[in-house]
Amino acid sequence: MLDVTLLGCGGMMPLPNRFLTALLARYNGMSVLIDCGEATQIALRKCGLSPKPIGVMCFTHYHADHISGLPGMLLTMGNAERTEPLVMIGPKGLTQVVASLRIIAPELPFEIICKEIEEQEQTFEFDGMYIDAFRVKHNVVCYGYSIRIPRAGRFDVDAAMQLPIDRRYWGRLQNGETVTVDGATYTPDMVMGPERTGIKVTYTTDTRPTDRIVHYAEGADLFICEGMYGEDDKADKAVEHKHMTFAEAAELAARANPKRMWLTHYSPSLVNPKPFMDGVRRVFANAEPGKDGKNLDIVFAEE
Amino acid sequence: MLDVTLLGCGGMMPLPNRFLTALLARYNGMSVLIDCGEATQIALRKCGLSPKPIGVMCFTHYHADHISGLPGMLLTMGNAERTEPLVMIGPKGLTQVVASLRIIAPELPFEIICKEIEEQEQTFEFDGMYIDAFRVKHNVVCYGYSIRIPRAGRFDVDAAMQLPIDRRYWGRLQNGETVTVDGATYTPDMVMGPERTGIKVTYTTDTRPTDRIVHYAEGADLFICEGMYGEDDKADKAVEHKHMTFAEAAELAARANPKRMWLTHYSPSLVNPKPFMDGVRRVFANAEPGKDGKNLDIVFAEE
Repeated sequence: MLDVTLLGCGGMMPLPNRFLTALLARYNGMSVLIDCGEATQIALRKCGLSPKPIGVMCFTHYHADHISGLPGMLLTMGNAERTEPLVMIGPKGLTQVVASLRIIAPELPFEIICKEIEEQEQTFEFDGMYIDAFRVKHNVVCYGYSIRIPRAGRFDVDAAMQLPIDRRYWGRLQNGETVTVDGATYTPDMVMGPERTGIKVTYTTDTRPTDRIVHYAEGADLFICEGMYGEDDKADKAVEHKHMTFAEAAELAARANPKRMWLTHYSPSLVNPKPFMDGVRRVFANAEPGKDGKNLDIVFAEE
Repeated sequence: MLDVTLLGCGGMMPLPNRFLTALLARYNGMSVLIDCGEATQIALRKCGLSPKPIGVMCFTHYHADHISGLPGMLLTMGNAERTEPLVMIGPKGLTQVVASLRIIAPELPFEIICKEIEEQEQTFEFDGMYIDAFRVKHNVVCYGYSIRIPRAGRFDVDAAMQLPIDRRYWGRLQNGETVTVDGATYTPDMVMGPERTGIKVTYTTDTRPTDRIVHYAEGADLFICEGMYGEDDKADKAVEHKHMTFAEAAELAARANPKRMWLTHYSPSLVNPKPFMDGVRRVFANAEPGKDGKNLDIVFAEE
């Protein structure tokens, strides 16, 4: 149902074998891209994915490694003859940053709609998909994101049969509409069971650990979390640059208890994350090192 | 003496196996970069080259595929603790374009000196290396570049022996200084043979064929020329978008007669340039298809 691909797992600068951290999530024919650093369009293409269906782009913050690929991506979308408007979500300043970068991509065949995040926590809705932006703790204003697909309760045929209305109204009730028949009002909850567990993917980079991250990642199907440094002795560096060590990410995951966690946003100095994974898994078992192109199809849980 | 690397050979957009067209030329510990599209810093690193010694960056024009990699490149140079000033050369508007793109790279530990090209033809000198900018014919203002290393004539010991001055003045004359001894003036030409053939590399992309290109590429050691389309039946498209077919590039080379030509700036639709090379070589024999990382060490000719 929700198909997610970690396009890159690097931080700071793109490397020959490690693209910059960015996430593509596909749902119902629409794609959401979170972050777009230099060469993200190459990473996308390398995964066999197209930029054309990207309907929403979210930016965590405006450090170059998270947005420098924007002008090229926009032009490539334009060359693919995209004409539908593109929504962008990001911290305050988005409109100005996009306008400034577009000095080299002034002409596009589609409209760009910038939505600047005004609050510490804010939710955006797109045809049944919800994007929660939540403020994290970096050296500039930075947000994490959860992409959620809620799932309605089961339709209760027995309850519907009890209502003194024709079957033809059932579909509207199931779709969440309130219906009035012969002066009486019928609400969806009369025929629908309790909301079932939906899908949630939480993505956060460029931050120190915070309680808010735990809250948003709680029970997620997938928690993609920055881990800039593998070595525990880089804890001071993590504090100084407002990033995390693998151990700190593991502790966040242990508290939020998602189904799985992928680490990402590795420092260029971290050549191989694997030697540090045993330590991470002692704290949170379902942890994996992110890598370029790592993909997961997330379906609704059986209930 | 001059070591040149074609970092990429693509046009329009970077592809998984084809970086955007850019050239790195190294001479006497200093590097010149011509064009810096998205992912040029990855291409550089893939060739085992460092961005730190880049002292001059030249831009042909401000279409994204020639400059979108600039903010990332600057930050990577900053992270490498470069502190020496960086000179940039480009068409009018350079200062504004660089300032605009630097919205995501505002803090750098080195100064940037922008030199906007004012004339149709203009020469810049850097410690014995000359960069000629020459206007070409694209749908925006665009320049080609020649990088030249001139070579002084041979020192004529016999002629020097004839002069009534001490040997200790010879070195200054050889270095181009005029010397006055006992009221008499001695000029370098008295001891130096005629200027010998230097080194020249000419680079031009995003242009229709012009006489000026022939002039600048004349006798070059290496002529790097755009060839957007391999197929002759794309001649109309080349005219429309102000690019060249391989055949047109071959004709330019046949007129300019450089030692060798490399084609570059291939359209993403051109999967493999090789099938078109026989046709090119019928017009100009020493033609090769450019490819990512193609390298040549150019030394002074034996004379």
